[in-house]
Amino acid sequence: MNNHPDVHEIAGYYRYDINHLPVGLELGESALRIVWDDGRRSEYHYLWLRDNCPCHECISELSREQVFEICDVPLTIRPETATLTEDGRLDIVWDHEAHKSRYHPGWLRKHCYSDEAREERVLKPVIWEKGQIDRSLPTYGFADIMEDDGVLLNWLRGQRDYGLCLVEGVPTLPGTVQAIANRISFIRETNFGVLFDVQSKPDANSAAYTTLRLPLHTDLPTRELQPGLQFLHCLVNDASGGESILVDGFRIAEEMREHYPEDFAALSTLPMDFYNKDRDTDYRFRATALKLDSEGNVSEVRIANFLRGPLDLPGGDIAALYKAYRQFMLLTRESRFQYFRQLQAGDMIVFDNRRVLHARNAFDLKAGDRHLQGCYVDRDELLSRIRVLERTYG
Amino acid sequence: MNNHPDVHEIAGYYRYDINHLPVGLELGESALRIVWDDGRRSEYHYLWLRDNCPCHECISELSREQVFEICDVPLTIRPETATLTEDGRLDIVWDHEAHKSRYHPGWLRKHCYSDEAREERVLKPVIWEKGQIDRSLPTYGFADIMEDDGVLLNWLRGQRDYGLCLVEGVPTLPGTVQAIANRISFIRETNFGVLFDVQSKPDANSAAYTTLRLPLHTDLPTRELQPGLQFLHCLVNDASGGESILVDGFRIAEEMREHYPEDFAALSTLPMDFYNKDRDTDYRFRATALKLDSEGNVSEVRIANFLRGPLDLPGGDIAALYKAYRQFMLLTRESRFQYFRQLQAGDMIVFDNRRVLHARNAFDLKAGDRHLQGCYVDRDELLSRIRVLERTYG
Repeated sequence: MNNHPDVHEIAGYYRYDINHLPVGLELGESALRIVWDDGRRSEYHYLWLRDNCPCHECISELSREQVFEICDVPLTIRPETATLTEDGRLDIVWDHEAHKSRYHPGWLRKHCYSDEAREERVLKPVIWEKGQIDRSLPTYGFADIMEDDGVLLNWLRGQRDYGLCLVEGVPTLPGTVQAIANRISFIRETNFGVLFDVQSKPDANSAAYTTLRLPLHTDLPTRELQPGLQFLHCLVNDASGGESILVDGFRIAEEMREHYPEDFAALSTLPMDFYNKDRDTDYRFRATALKLDSEGNVSEVRIANFLRGPLDLPGGDIAALYKAYRQFMLLTRESRFQYFRQLQAGDMIVFDNRRVLHARNAFDLKAGDRHLQGCYVDRDELLSRIRVLERTYG
Repeated sequence: MNNHPDVHEIAGYYRYDINHLPVGLELGESALRIVWDDGRRSEYHYLWLRDNCPCHECISELSREQVFEICDVPLTIRPETATLTEDGRLDIVWDHEAHKSRYHPGWLRKHCYSDEAREERVLKPVIWEKGQIDRSLPTYGFADIMEDDGVLLNWLRGQRDYGLCLVEGVPTLPGTVQAIANRISFIRETNFGVLFDVQSKPDANSAAYTTLRLPLHTDLPTRELQPGLQFLHCLVNDASGGESILVDGFRIAEEMREHYPEDFAALSTLPMDFYNKDRDTDYRFRATALKLDSEGNVSEVRIANFLRGPLDLPGGDIAALYKAYRQFMLLTRESRFQYFRQLQAGDMIVFDNRRVLHARNAFDLKAGDRHLQGCYVDRDELLSRIRVLERTYG
């Protein structure tokens, strides 16, 4: 039975598989409940359902964006009738303007907001230290990434979950880093340009452009949004020293939470100030070194010893933050947490700059040259590309 | 008396004026206290002072960045001696490695972190509604901004404080918006490109590119970092309708806090999901519509009815968030909050997209054409440019 022959749904870019069908329907005071064929129960509030009506009056056919506004119906809106069709669709006729809505069962199931369904959707990062990453560093070939969208998707999921991957066999042609970054999206430009060349420069405006050792850090903590993915493509590395060191900042944070809970609390609640120190730019940002999400999980690390400004806090907090910051930095120096690699020409490491700290040892140019080329792509772009690829490669 | 003839300070890019001199010095257990000639007292912790030593051993002369790391000295570090020089400098010899530090009185005063000093440094936005902005919209001439760095600084301070300025006399040549944006810095690229053309398009992938009315919104709430400044340059506007409407989101938030405190709490604690709906991109971000800073002030507004995804919250929160969201949107529709303008060819409005909501009425192309060109520049770039200009124009 089709109650709604006149309802024309505007399809989104997803197809929703129908893995389960609704078998029961109950109307409550402010929400209806669907019982599924596997016993799961989903509650959908009337306002939520009305807001998500996919019909051609509510959604613009051209942009596929909503034109309906939920503030144009009463708060108390409810169904006049609600029925399940034979093919599992939910049909509603509303008590306001007799508007008709039809919902696809795959869409309804996918957007269920029961505690159980919400828990299933959480993605957890793979947290690592030296042992794990030495055994299982996700590694991909340049040509495969460039030519095969399925490999591209696997690589990007590796980036999302591990925060660090190696790409091998990258032609040592300057600019190649841009080609691979563009497989994801456009590059995040910064004051260091679209691409940056990590080599010793006489007029260094950053510690990166000297031969000095760099302590473990994230890039551009001076910017409100730290760049997400950082690409470092090794073109030449014949100098002595200059080994790359990478540490999972989430692992250090975990260690802090377990063994130094007061310090963990200080780093996640007391902001530090980060300053860029240059002739033509003066970026500053104030944020905690550890950022927690609404569940209390660490979602971001922001740290670079050489880009800190003076702490600017009530006097009582100064000593607590120094104690915590020192403890964090001392942990990053422990080799048990460190992935250590002398990059070779043709290697490219790509890491989540908001999670994985990087460093390099000092190097000496007497033995040869050292030249890395790098760029940034933001986390939004990574996640968007994964979702678009998943429409096809699921 | 110069205790430290061998200390070579690395100058930053600032000059610190000496408006006050230290007249007294006391050493406490973990901090020293300076008494200034105007009676103010400043406390500086020993770790803080050691961390901020400006000497050539602690700071790289090349990059002007710190090479010293605070985790390499004991937590208990303290001065062996601390003295004030005749010209007001603080000289310290530390009990660790007999390191010597020298501090400039202008720098010390500027970085005092007493409650009083910290309070003085807070910048407050100028919050507006229709009356104020009609009387005092900051307005600048294109040629002045392009040629005079002092006017540039005034304009940028206007952007920072009001979140909305008008630029007049802008040549109606496509691309001019880029020239004026580049007076600040580089442009924030998005999936709409570096520049975007707001005109009706047959293949509209956004409501912006139709002739439809747009409700008050921020651009790209689907992105983790919403673009900061939005530039809209009117090249042609002969269509009927299409008036621009701008509302200070901070004013609406203030109204919510005062009159609808429960709704204010819901909007600042319960996240919404924002989805972009396009063939080649699938950006999503989850955040509260109102973001509060650590002092509880609203620091950002994120809202666009047509870019919301289904709410994904525990069932108990759904009704509360709908009630609050509806209330917010109803307030944005009240004309007492709205700046209303039919843009003319040669006008450019520039506004803080993370604060000021914008909208336009539907328009009809029978009477003529309508073409705006726009771009984004991030808040970091605005604030950096202001600081660099202030080095010269104070």
